[in-house]
Amino acid sequence: MENTVLCVMPAEARHKEKLEAAGAGCRFIYASYKTVTREQIAQADVILGNAPADMICASPRLKLLQLNSAGTDDYIRPGVLNPETILLNATGAYSKAVAEHALAMTLALIKKLHLYRDDRKAGTWSDYGTVTSIADAVVLVVGLGDIGAHYARLAKALGAYTIGISRRPKEALPYADELYLTEQTDEILSRADVVVSFLPGNGQTRHFYDTARFARMKEGAYFLNLGRGSAVDQEALLQALAGGHLAGAGIDVTDPEPLPAESPLWQEEKLLITPHVAGSFHLPETFERIVDIAAENLRAWLEGGSLRNVVDFTTGYKR
Amino acid sequence: MENTVLCVMPAEARHKEKLEAAGAGCRFIYASYKTVTREQIAQADVILGNAPADMICASPRLKLLQLNSAGTDDYIRPGVLNPETILLNATGAYSKAVAEHALAMTLALIKKLHLYRDDRKAGTWSDYGTVTSIADAVVLVVGLGDIGAHYARLAKALGAYTIGISRRPKEALPYADELYLTEQTDEILSRADVVVSFLPGNGQTRHFYDTARFARMKEGAYFLNLGRGSAVDQEALLQALAGGHLAGAGIDVTDPEPLPAESPLWQEEKLLITPHVAGSFHLPETFERIVDIAAENLRAWLEGGSLRNVVDFTTGYKR
Repeated sequence: MENTVLCVMPAEARHKEKLEAAGAGCRFIYASYKTVTREQIAQADVILGNAPADMICASPRLKLLQLNSAGTDDYIRPGVLNPETILLNATGAYSKAVAEHALAMTLALIKKLHLYRDDRKAGTWSDYGTVTSIADAVVLVVGLGDIGAHYARLAKALGAYTIGISRRPKEALPYADELYLTEQTDEILSRADVVVSFLPGNGQTRHFYDTARFARMKEGAYFLNLGRGSAVDQEALLQALAGGHLAGAGIDVTDPEPLPAESPLWQEEKLLITPHVAGSFHLPETFERIVDIAAENLRAWLEGGSLRNVVDFTTGYKR
Repeated sequence: MENTVLCVMPAEARHKEKLEAAGAGCRFIYASYKTVTREQIAQADVILGNAPADMICASPRLKLLQLNSAGTDDYIRPGVLNPETILLNATGAYSKAVAEHALAMTLALIKKLHLYRDDRKAGTWSDYGTVTSIADAVVLVVGLGDIGAHYARLAKALGAYTIGISRRPKEALPYADELYLTEQTDEILSRADVVVSFLPGNGQTRHFYDTARFARMKEGAYFLNLGRGSAVDQEALLQALAGGHLAGAGIDVTDPEPLPAESPLWQEEKLLITPHVAGSFHLPETFERIVDIAAENLRAWLEGGSLRNVVDFTTGYKR
C-alpha cells in the first residue's frame, strides 16, 4: 500500500521536487502548521515538519515524524506519539544560525551595545565604562551538540579560551580547551567570564540554572541561554542581574513564549532578549538544510537504510 | 640640560615607574587632560598623552609629542605644532579593542539585535524576519592599518570572505581574500554585504562616503564606520538608510562629537550608534599598550634610537 506523506513545512516548488524524488511512490499532501487538520494527520504514514503536537493523538498509522526543529520537547511528552513512531529531529540544520546569533549576543553584551542602544531615543551620548575582550575571555559552553560545538568553534576562532560541558564523555575536540561532564558543572562555573547554554528542554534540564548556580558564577560574568527557556529559573536570573552579581545576560528563549509584555524580564536593562529568533528559518539556509535532512531520511526509511537524527523519547536527545 | 617630560595620561604608580625608568634623568610632571596648564605645556620638552591641541601653540620647546590616540586630526592642523616637533601616535594599541567593537556592531546589525532591543521597553515579542550569516558575507574593510587588519582577521576567522582596501599596495595578506587600492573603491563597493570603514580624519577622507558611494553599495548592504565621523556625509547616510538602500549601519564616530540630542541620526532605527567608545581606554589592556609604546619611544628618543609610530604632519598617517 502506498504511504501518505504529509508535509507541513513551507515547501516551495524546488523543495517539493526534492522531497517527492526522495519519496517516489508515496502520496504527498501539503499543508501548513496553521491549516493542517486532524484528518490529514490521522491519515499520514509520514509527517514532515512540526505538526501541532496536540493534534497527533498517538496516531497508530504514523510511522515516521521528521521534525523541522532541533528541539523535541513538545513531542516527547507521554501520549503525543505512538511508541512505534520513529521521531527524527533536524539537529545540524540550525548550528550556523543559532551559534552565530549566540555569538552576536555575546559580543553585544560584553561591548555593552544593549546599553548604548537604549540611549538612542533620548539622544544621550553617555559612556558605560570598561568592556571585556572576547580574546581574553574564558567561555563555558554548556551543551556540546551541533549548535554548542559550532559556537565553541567561533568563540575559539576569536581567541577565547573555551571549556565545553557535555552529557556524555567526548574525545578531545579542537575547539574546546577543556571538556567536562554535566555533573561537573558546579566545579567549573566560577572560572567562566561567559556562560552560554544550549541545553534542550526536558525533565532533566528544568531550572538547571537556579539561584545556587548563578551564585557560583564569577562576579561580573555574562550568562546566555539559546537552548530552552525552561532550563532557567527566570526569577533567579533576574535577582542575579539586579543584585549586580552578573554583569549581563542574553536570552533568545523564555518560559513561557511569547514572554508576556508585563514580565519583569523586559524591565531589566542588563538583560538582552530576542524573541526565539536565533533559529527558526531566519537564516534562509537553515530551511534548505532541513529539507535535505527530511529528504535523506524519507529515502532511507523507504529503502530500509539508516536514519539520521533518531530521537530517544525518554531523553529527547539523539540516540 | 635635563628634559622635562609632561605626562597627561591617567598614569598609575606602575605606569609612572615604567615611564620614569625609560626616561631616566628627565624631570617628570604629571597632570591630567583637564587640569594641565599652558605653563606646564610651554615648559615641556616631551609630552606624553593628548594634551589639548589648542594649548600647545606651536611651543618651540616641545621636541616630542607622544599621543595616546591613534587619530591625529587635532594635532596636524597648521599652527598646533612647531614643525620641529616629532609627533608620535599610539597606533597598534587600539587594534584589539576597536576591531572587536566593530565586529560586535557588525554581528548585532546583521542579526538585527538593535531592532529587537528597541522592543524591550514596550515588552513586544515581534519578529523582524530573515538575517545574514557572517560566514556567507563578503566583508569589505576600508583602511588596512592595525585596526582594519585585525578586524579583517576576525571576520575571516568567522568564515567571511574579506576584501581589503589600502592607500598603498600591500603584499598578499592571509586575512584578505582580495586587496585593492583606495582609488579602486568604487569598483568594489557593490560586491560587499558589509562595508567597514576605519579611515582616519583628514583632508583626503572628508565625506569619502557620500551619496554617490552609498548608491554604489549593494542593495541591502550594511555600512559601519569606526574611523572618524568626518569621513561620512551623515545626511547621505541617513538618506541611504531611510530610502531602504542600506539595510543598516553602525557608527562609533560622528561629526560633531558628542552628537547633539536633536540630531536626526538618533531617530533612524536602522542606525546603531555608540558614542566613540570602541577605543579610548574601555579595554583596560589598551592603556597598558599605550604606556608601553610611550616608554619605548621616550627611551629611544633619549638614546637616539629609532622611533615607533612617527606621524607625517601632511597626511596624519604613520611615516
